[in-house]
Amino acid sequence: MSRHFIIDCDTAEDDVLSLISLLAHGISVHALTVVEGNIEYENEMKGALWALEYLRENGVQIGDLKVYPGARRLLSKDFRTAEFVHGETGLGEIEVNVKDYSLLAKEDASSEIIRLSKEYEGSLEFLAISPLTNLALAYLRDPEITKRIKTVYIMGGTIYARGNITPVAEFNFWVDPDAAKLVLNAGFNIVMVPWEVAVNNAIDMVSFMKLTSLKTKLSSLYAKMYSHYRKASMNMQRMRGNPHPDVITTAIAIDPSIAKVIKEENVDVETCDCQSRGLTIIDYIDPGHVITKKPNAKIVYDIDYEKFVQFLTKVLTWF
Amino acid sequence: MSRHFIIDCDTAEDDVLSLISLLAHGISVHALTVVEGNIEYENEMKGALWALEYLRENGVQIGDLKVYPGARRLLSKDFRTAEFVHGETGLGEIEVNVKDYSLLAKEDASSEIIRLSKEYEGSLEFLAISPLTNLALAYLRDPEITKRIKTVYIMGGTIYARGNITPVAEFNFWVDPDAAKLVLNAGFNIVMVPWEVAVNNAIDMVSFMKLTSLKTKLSSLYAKMYSHYRKASMNMQRMRGNPHPDVITTAIAIDPSIAKVIKEENVDVETCDCQSRGLTIIDYIDPGHVITKKPNAKIVYDIDYEKFVQFLTKVLTWF
Amino acid sequence: MSRHFIIDCDTAEDDVLSLISLLAHGISVHALTVVEGNIEYENEMKGALWALEYLRENGVQIGDLKVYPGARRLLSKDFRTAEFVHGETGLGEIEVNVKDYSLLAKEDASSEIIRLSKEYEGSLEFLAISPLTNLALAYLRDPEITKRIKTVYIMGGTIYARGNITPVAEFNFWVDPDAAKLVLNAGFNIVMVPWEVAVNNAIDMVSFMKLTSLKTKLSSLYAKMYSHYRKASMNMQRMRGNPHPDVITTAIAIDPSIAKVIKEENVDVETCDCQSRGLTIIDYIDPGHVITKKPNAKIVYDIDYEKFVQFLTKVLTWF
Amino acid sequence: MSRHFIIDCDTAEDDVLSLISLLAHGISVHALTVVEGNIEYENEMKGALWALEYLRENGVQIGDLKVYPGARRLLSKDFRTAEFVHGETGLGEIEVNVKDYSLLAKEDASSEIIRLSKEYEGSLEFLAISPLTNLALAYLRDPEITKRIKTVYIMGGTIYARGNITPVAEFNFWVDPDAAKLVLNAGFNIVMVPWEVAVNNAIDMVSFMKLTSLKTKLSSLYAKMYSHYRKASMNMQRMRGNPHPDVITTAIAIDPSIAKVIKEENVDVETCDCQSRGLTIIDYIDPGHVITKKPNAKIVYDIDYEKFVQFLTKVLTWF
Repeated sequence: MSRHFIIDCDTAEDDVLSLISLLAHGISVHALTVVEGNIEYENEMKGALWALEYLRENGVQIGDLKVYPGARRLLSKDFRTAEFVHGETGLGEIEVNVKDYSLLAKEDASSEIIRLSKEYEGSLEFLAISPLTNLALAYLRDPEITKRIKTVYIMGGTIYARGNITPVAEFNFWVDPDAAKLVLNAGFNIVMVPWEVAVNNAIDMVSFMKLTSLKTKLSSLYAKMYSHYRKASMNMQRMRGNPHPDVITTAIAIDPSIAKVIKEENVDVETCDCQSRGLTIIDYIDPGHVITKKPNAKIVYDIDYEKFVQFLTKVLTWF
Repeated sequence: MSRHFIIDCDTAEDDVLSLISLLAHGISVHALTVVEGNIEYENEMKGALWALEYLRENGVQIGDLKVYPGARRLLSKDFRTAEFVHGETGLGEIEVNVKDYSLLAKEDASSEIIRLSKEYEGSLEFLAISPLTNLALAYLRDPEITKRIKTVYIMGGTIYARGNITPVAEFNFWVDPDAAKLVLNAGFNIVMVPWEVAVNNAIDMVSFMKLTSLKTKLSSLYAKMYSHYRKASMNMQRMRGNPHPDVITTAIAIDPSIAKVIKEENVDVETCDCQSRGLTIIDYIDPGHVITKKPNAKIVYDIDYEKFVQFLTKVLTWF
Repeated sequence: MSRHFIIDCDTAEDDVLSLISLLAHGISVHALTVVEGNIEYENEMKGALWALEYLRENGVQIGDLKVYPGARRLLSKDFRTAEFVHGETGLGEIEVNVKDYSLLAKEDASSEIIRLSKEYEGSLEFLAISPLTNLALAYLRDPEITKRIKTVYIMGGTIYARGNITPVAEFNFWVDPDAAKLVLNAGFNIVMVPWEVAVNNAIDMVSFMKLTSLKTKLSSLYAKMYSHYRKASMNMQRMRGNPHPDVITTAIAIDPSIAKVIKEENVDVETCDCQSRGLTIIDYIDPGHVITKKPNAKIVYDIDYEKFVQFLTKVLTWF
Repeated sequence: MSRHFIIDCDTAEDDVLSLISLLAHGISVHALTVVEGNIEYENEMKGALWALEYLRENGVQIGDLKVYPGARRLLSKDFRTAEFVHGETGLGEIEVNVKDYSLLAKEDASSEIIRLSKEYEGSLEFLAISPLTNLALAYLRDPEITKRIKTVYIMGGTIYARGNITPVAEFNFWVDPDAAKLVLNAGFNIVMVPWEVAVNNAIDMVSFMKLTSLKTKLSSLYAKMYSHYRKASMNMQRMRGNPHPDVITTAIAIDPSIAKVIKEENVDVETCDCQSRGLTIIDYIDPGHVITKKPNAKIVYDIDYEKFVQFLTKVLTWF
């Protein structure tokens, strides 16, 4: 049975590798919907278009897959991009030249999300590796969409309030906390991968050496594409290596067994414009206690690192 | 030169009379876009459909005018409806039976707003007598829309922080303060009619007697349609009569000379979920002082009451 | 029957004239408690000490009156002073030299407020022409104080959300909104004089000429002391003249008949750290409507300007 | 060298055992200052008075130690007590009868804190096992106090945003977040023991059996006094046993070697009235990254459980 995906992304290196991962597994990707986030919106668009061209040039069948322009700003707040993490183009040493704008769709992201949710009703899967503005807009326009999408995979939030854009908030939730709150409480079937999972399973030096010496085109692309992000994450947060939050989420979407610890819990997001903006609020306290809400998401607490490295190896040996 | 309008409404009596007013003046209305607000969304939809049927039955050419389903909830907050003001159906003693659902459009409100802004680029006028969610959604989807719409007329906000849903907030701004803030700061050409203008120019008993004894169909409709609102406003806020915030805004859109005092100022909206939610913030302090922002709206401070009564008289003698 | 006062002040020109006004009327002032506000705390202290010395040097009996050091910061927020309004010393062209630090009390403000509320139980009057931190501290330490103080006169807040430090907030409430909220809801007997009363009754050029040509020492002091404030208020807010918010409050405390329009209403203060910080929330909506709270203050809406000018004339001819 | 302490408490079982622990170690306790918190203020006062009487009756020298009435409410917010955790009296099966009100001081808490900080300048230690209102009031009245107190030990906050009164907030910080923020940022020398330390080192069944079979008076008191708390914590949060947050803090104050992992970090508190109220914000992100503030507290991340049980054993065998 074939699977049908939308990828909602704020295109940087980890988003591109997520796209490659899905296609490498023979999964149908019907739309790349772009949203404000990691870097300047225009550069996110260019990165997405470049990625499609790159794949086509390397003989990948991309079918009717196009790039759909989405929200350039949030539902109700201001934010800032994170070029200090992803670099200006988001794609490290890669030279991003867009030649073919025919891959740019005329429809806007939320319209295409609504349309595809009807075309693939019940089987469409939504990979959100970005702030959630586009899906929130689709939901605001058509609340019934929650029943037509099979699963929403979200890279976002934290488990223990140890964030990456503020001390307590993860970037995707922090950027548009209102959208995140809307989506989490809308009634979707949600699998959520918090930031700490990426930190605790960052690609260490050993794995990095292995992945970059596969002598494939994609292995070389991987090395170049993550160059800025790799340095930034190791310098700034003294992690053991380079975190792959988006690709981990994608990997779990493709192969759920990569997730090792999963809890069904109620997750909410702090939307106030205060120090806690974007805080992930997990109602972990036992039933019967102070606050108790029904679970609304499956939260991944940890993954099988070795399996994840195997997953990456397989993807990077595609071509 | 003919004029082209969208009416964005949370259908109650004052919205229906606004529609009648535009049509009575030979103005083309291309869409009734409905949004959460005064009463239950389903009843707002019914009221809008009923109004179109009523007009058609009375020989009014409504052309391709349809009712477009819009946002049923806000960008990011909760709210409550105001049946205690407008009654359950919003239309007083009128019996609201919808027979013809062909007047219900398939496209959603923000899509139609975007489409019409292209079809009537530069001449489309937007009458917002409702919370601003629909226009905010259109703007979030297509920021260029601000350049294509000629004028946005907004019934909303206060001049002196004397509200109607909380002590300091007016209903339309209070319902979706995030949408109001977005629209006010987007760069539209805005004419704004605050709540106090309606209070200070409420239809008094003398005018009411005059307007309801015109012996026309519309005069009789007027008497019945406002019955709940009339009582509610006189009982609850001890006004001198029945305020017509939406129709005053419509009257000004049709005939700007009805506005007597207008100031160009910077208007903002309090979006926090606190006691001040929805507060209108007018930066009245002189340039050079503490805070100074560029004007973003023409605010109507007062109207010519006699002219407004003449306007109503003309409308209610249409048929 | 003699009257007993505490003056709680953030000493600038208007505070000093308030002190002089009370003494000129033979009223016992038992403490000048100083609090953060108009200008740097140290300069407020100097101004208060200078004022006592000046009065003593001019033969005024100040009895045991001393300056009590109070809060140098707010209950829970940050703020900024307003030297752009009152000048660095707060006293215009006056040279502020403090020679006698024996007039500086050892006890802190809230301790002395509590002590005096016991000594003059039932007759003590509290003139708050400043942010309300000191009284809030006294109340937090001893909630029974509300029953022992006869009346609290407050210069603070707005009637129509037309502020002086932000578009919607008056300075004293804005500085420490938490203290203002505490005091307003504590159960004191409160007379409140909002900012607009001072604006609408600013001393115009005619009155100013009269008051400064009285050929008394105090008349000359008045001219010099208000020099900075006078220019600042006329330049910045284009008022008709120089507002005297503190002295108007003091005048009403001395002679209630100076107040022309008074309403008993419920007043609250916005404490959130948002654009509306310090907003005065008057629950003006009629009973039975949305929100209804019991009146907690007598709000002065307007005064008799001529009577106020006579009051000033009398004070300035004292010596 | 003798040590001098103030205990600031919202008297329940864990507070009383903290007092006993200090006295059992020959440390001078000069004041029990009571503050709003765990249970109704009046019952906290009774519990504190009862504890002093109990100790005196059992031959303990309490010297001039008295109970000082402190804040009955917060600096600026509302809160609720936690009888569902600590029971109505806070002392389980103990019958709390207060016979001797001479142990109740006339001075209020913040005055005595200021006074003692002068008497024992440089050597006074402050044990805050409660919301921080009293110390915040003392600081607001006399900011120089930060230089005179040697160390402030705080039981409060969380490490990983896993709270006990809301999903993300610990009770003491949640009750008066404004006071907590004030104290943390005032410049005190602070040792902070977060909630998770108590959870991870809750007294398990084995230790409990040992501690309650010591056949001493205090061992029996311990069993009775914690009866409500013990059940509540095991039922509600499914902990492995009964947490002792206050006594752990006291133990660390007495013997720093009980703390096993300590980090110097910057800690802040969310003060907004939102879902995140009272959230502990630890600026864990490396220098050079997004936000970097100077460390203001030594945060205890873990303790030596065995040493802590030995500590309790020693205390409970005092008599």
